[in-house]
Amino acid sequence: MNQDLIDKCMAALEEEDLDAIIAMSPENFAYVTGFIVPSQPVLRWRHAAAVITRDGRRALFTVDMEASTVKDIQPDEDVRVWEEFEEDAMPVLADLIRDLGLSSARVGLETDYLPVRDMERLIDLVPDVRWEPCYPIFNRLRMIKTPRELELMRKLARITDRSIKEALESVSAGDTEMDLAGAVTTNLFRYGAQDFKWLILASGERSQYPNVGPTLRKLERGDLVRLEVFGALDGYHTGICRTAVVQEASEEVNEIWSNIVASRDLIFETIRDGASSADVYQKVKSRFEELGWEPMSFVGHGIGLFVHEEPYIGRYGDARIESDMVLGTEPVLLIPGKYGFQVKDIVAVRPDGCEVLSDVTDTDRLFVIE
Amino acid sequence: MNQDLIDKCMAALEEEDLDAIIAMSPENFAYVTGFIVPSQPVLRWRHAAAVITRDGRRALFTVDMEASTVKDIQPDEDVRVWEEFEEDAMPVLADLIRDLGLSSARVGLETDYLPVRDMERLIDLVPDVRWEPCYPIFNRLRMIKTPRELELMRKLARITDRSIKEALESVSAGDTEMDLAGAVTTNLFRYGAQDFKWLILASGERSQYPNVGPTLRKLERGDLVRLEVFGALDGYHTGICRTAVVQEASEEVNEIWSNIVASRDLIFETIRDGASSADVYQKVKSRFEELGWEPMSFVGHGIGLFVHEEPYIGRYGDARIESDMVLGTEPVLLIPGKYGFQVKDIVAVRPDGCEVLSDVTDTDRLFVIE
Repeated sequence: MNQDLIDKCMAALEEEDLDAIIAMSPENFAYVTGFIVPSQPVLRWRHAAAVITRDGRRALFTVDMEASTVKDIQPDEDVRVWEEFEEDAMPVLADLIRDLGLSSARVGLETDYLPVRDMERLIDLVPDVRWEPCYPIFNRLRMIKTPRELELMRKLARITDRSIKEALESVSAGDTEMDLAGAVTTNLFRYGAQDFKWLILASGERSQYPNVGPTLRKLERGDLVRLEVFGALDGYHTGICRTAVVQEASEEVNEIWSNIVASRDLIFETIRDGASSADVYQKVKSRFEELGWEPMSFVGHGIGLFVHEEPYIGRYGDARIESDMVLGTEPVLLIPGKYGFQVKDIVAVRPDGCEVLSDVTDTDRLFVIE
Repeated sequence: MNQDLIDKCMAALEEEDLDAIIAMSPENFAYVTGFIVPSQPVLRWRHAAAVITRDGRRALFTVDMEASTVKDIQPDEDVRVWEEFEEDAMPVLADLIRDLGLSSARVGLETDYLPVRDMERLIDLVPDVRWEPCYPIFNRLRMIKTPRELELMRKLARITDRSIKEALESVSAGDTEMDLAGAVTTNLFRYGAQDFKWLILASGERSQYPNVGPTLRKLERGDLVRLEVFGALDGYHTGICRTAVVQEASEEVNEIWSNIVASRDLIFETIRDGASSADVYQKVKSRFEELGWEPMSFVGHGIGLFVHEEPYIGRYGDARIESDMVLGTEPVLLIPGKYGFQVKDIVAVRPDGCEVLSDVTDTDRLFVIE
């Protein structure tokens, strides 16, 4: 378990006057334990949980299939196991809640994650628990990264960026989007990412669509290619996007790219401890509007155990940007019926600016696929 | 939209006396529409839904970010769009429910998917709707595949199997688990899978753990290597597992493998229209027990739009196996502290037996990595 993060949770419980908090989503389970229960993110009914009490007691809860893995990683923790098929997860969790003396306590639960069916069972089983939504607590805590988290994300950002760069270098006109997808995933594993989430890859006219995946479409002279991938390591993610052109860019394309890069720099220059997210967004929006462009609803977001986290740098709300946040910054221009441009970097916020963690690819000029 | 599957839903609504059904999970949305909204499976708050009424009206619901993609795929459907950040998804869904005349109707909802927070909002917004859990309906419908689904899964099973086989052929002792992971994902994309879910890869002692992913561990002479991957195409999945040995197998290992293969054949021989899942499981269990082995809690499961679907062939319950089900069959032996064996195939149930869809790799003998 991550004692530094458990301490943060305990302080939050004190502040919110909660007796305990239950981390049940894969990302918040990983936040307090430091590991992912293998099948939990894939099979949503294979519930796992980490319970932290205000006085620092903790217990883990997992499905029988993963008991050997969990006990091997955490040999000294109290691990409760529920049997898939024989029993429902919730009665075993309810027993754990009772054993921890929380039967009539005020307990934080991730109501933005837990399905209705499971909540109904829990309410039946431990009817006197006073449940409170606790996802805002986790969202807030996870915004500020510890030195260990920063180091991990720095390493992963470089792995992801290098994987994309070398994949773009390895393909040629006539290769397919699938060839490029294969190259980038091979590189991710080769350089030590354990997995990836969400491979977005679109060439030619398809590059106008924000989040589509690879097809067997062949790369042709003049195509734009937008490639975004979220490398994953120990539960953390870094989403990086590079845009390339096949063989030759038109003047218009080069002109647009130089303005995308200028918008990226504007974001980099504005981000620092104490900056306002609304101000960062407004600066990019004004620049886009001068160019007659339509900006997306956000140009950046927190990132870490989930691919999108708070704070957003967007059209709505205003968040104070703080040191040790890690943000994905992403000016995007999608022109309907035509094509799309995007550059997404990962930055760590510093007192006087930002450190670009995705520093492998030179994006000042549009990448050319030969 | 898939009219054949919409017809099935309408018949189920009639049978269950429901006025409408709302598909909100990525798999059930894909079931009725035939496509995946790109970011829905990744960002769980980016709700998408397909509403089908008993009299055959339908409407789609998606986040603004994906509106261009959805409208391009479904130009003739009623598509409601909600704006991320500006508004919550649920009021827009509630408007749609009212517009369809369902304000006081009996409506099926996936309560095993929808988070508590969203359900609470819906109850506030359309308080007179009588909600019913509808996941059992989708689970039941999805068990029996249409000819189109069977064709798609046949194609995908071969892509996945071939990708694994050629990946195993491409690595040697001294390569890492990550190299093998990269090879298999490259092959998946090369042969036309659009994505994959859940890459399980473990060599040597790590092969004892059921669901772990690849590491930088090097493959060494005598290691067992368990590789399972779920190739994905148009929302469907085929999970295939092959076990290999590096360079040379001990007699013990070859002996175990021949018994694993015999258990696989026992499953293949027993599956047919009308077979009992409990009987299939019992046959494998008896064989395992004769060998002094501990069987897993299941040796097979339905598969399709989700990586595990009903029916399970396992320790609990008894399901009638029926023609046009697609099943993953998987005898597994994990020996604590030592190693693990598994062979997982994809079969389609026929009136008089089963058709093995994963027919590329010869698994009768243990695969040898050179």
